Amino acid sequence: MQKIGFIGTGVMGRPMAANLLRRGFPVGIVGRHPEREAALVELGVEVAKTAGELAAGCDVVILMLPDTQTVEQVLFDDGGVASGARAGTIVIDMSTISPTKTMEFASRLEGAGCAMLDAPVSGGEKGAIEGTLGIMVGGPQKTFEKCCGILEAMGRTITYTGPSGCGQKTKLVNQLVGATNLLAAVEGLRLARAAGLDAETTLRAVSSGAAASWMLVNLGPKILEKDFAPGFSLRLQYKDVSLLSEWIAGLGGEYPAAGLIESIYRQAVEAGLSEQGNQGLINLWEQ
Amino acid sequence: MQKIGFIGTGVMGRPMAANLLRRGFPVGIVGRHPEREAALVELGVEVAKTAGELAAGCDVVILMLPDTQTVEQVLFDDGGVASGARAGTIVIDMSTISPTKTMEFASRLEGAGCAMLDAPVSGGEKGAIEGTLGIMVGGPQKTFEKCCGILEAMGRTITYTGPSGCGQKTKLVNQLVGATNLLAAVEGLRLARAAGLDAETTLRAVSSGAAASWMLVNLGPKILEKDFAPGFSLRLQYKDVSLLSEWIAGLGGEYPAAGLIESIYRQAVEAGLSEQGNQGLINLWEQ
Repeated sequence: MQKIGFIGTGVMGRPMAANLLRRGFPVGIVGRHPEREAALVELGVEVAKTAGELAAGCDVVILMLPDTQTVEQVLFDDGGVASGARAGTIVIDMSTISPTKTMEFASRLEGAGCAMLDAPVSGGEKGAIEGTLGIMVGGPQKTFEKCCGILEAMGRTITYTGPSGCGQKTKLVNQLVGATNLLAAVEGLRLARAAGLDAETTLRAVSSGAAASWMLVNLGPKILEKDFAPGFSLRLQYKDVSLLSEWIAGLGGEYPAAGLIESIYRQAVEAGLSEQGNQGLINLWEQ
Repeated sequence: MQKIGFIGTGVMGRPMAANLLRRGFPVGIVGRHPEREAALVELGVEVAKTAGELAAGCDVVILMLPDTQTVEQVLFDDGGVASGARAGTIVIDMSTISPTKTMEFASRLEGAGCAMLDAPVSGGEKGAIEGTLGIMVGGPQKTFEKCCGILEAMGRTITYTGPSGCGQKTKLVNQLVGATNLLAAVEGLRLARAAGLDAETTLRAVSSGAAASWMLVNLGPKILEKDFAPGFSLRLQYKDVSLLSEWIAGLGGEYPAAGLIESIYRQAVEAGLSEQGNQGLINLWEQ
């Protein structure tokens, strides 16, 4: 089995690494936060001192990091992944970051004989824990085929989307559609309340037909129960919407829904709602 | 069984009346378009000369008409429903019209001893044919209970939403959410194409997770096949979005998604796309 280095042991990364261990993959991490890594150490991970040292001893390095800049640092800074990787080492970046930068990183790694996949996920903490993430994969198809077993340990719907960057691009399309559907669900519930309708009855009626969406069906009930705990935080939702806007600005063309959600989710973050779940968007209007 | 007068034998009304006949309800119509009514006559409908004459011989009068003005004329003009109805006649308006006008009509009919339900539907021609419409019902609860058998002959998810007008209000919430989800689906597919992604692969990946919606799953494939035949026309979608805007303007409050879809669907109608299915919205940008 391929030996895996897993970098990024946050809310998503920890259960993903644990699922790899459970499927029998040897996994190493970079020791930085002993407390939050204790459970993984118990499951048998090895702990390296730097990303470079970790990469030197692995076949595949997985990144699950918060943003483009952090991915760039972990890959290319002194003591980073690129400093330790050998020809043939595969890098799988499962973070959601800029598609343009992804292609640049892949090309730099290729110069060192390393292939890179971009493989951002959807499904949040719940999907990470249950191993049911959706994974959108870009990069060389042969590299993808070598990594299917690894991806299947963490996800259920694994889609090969095309060359480097396509995974990130597909993820941003996903975020455009999902974040707009969430705005629609929130606005529908606000309107129902403002009109004096019974919100629960309205939610049931609207969820049963052509207006149904995952966001309405899954987050609508949380909104009615005033459960704003984050499955996926507004901070991360806005980060993705910002990446989307930046990418669209580079492509050109008129994308009115993307323009609207950039403005709305920015207002939500500015209003101090960052650490609520994305269903907390409704608190931009109702407190 | 209640004797039913059915007014409005268009694309929706004809199969709805046919489903009532199949369940054994005696049904009468107003003879106006012999050609399009021939199939109903074969199924056994009686044909009256005016709405008033029809109402005089029925327990329940159902309306399935294109807009608020037509409903008002059919109810209250000379020879209209109100001229023939007796105390105890029930009017069920299944058209999608103004909630405010609905409450006014119900109150005028109440003065003549007639109860009115507003019971707009979702599910389009397919739902009308298969008898699987979603029906959102407002009006006196006792009147609703008397009419359950009638509604169940035409629909599957029948939701009692509250007093007069609540059915129309719930329907407009439904249209807000659905029309916004459709814009999201269209914009996602446009972005996928503009970015050089494979549209079919993107649709599959995005439909499988948190960005899924009825609109994306059902109309996305039609868009990719360039099938713009109307299940529900852009003309009617815009009519509903206009009713929504008018209603919201009366309520007050900030509804950014509603504002955006009013502008977008108006542009689609102005661009000559009225008679396409609502998935033809994509042709506002791609031809």
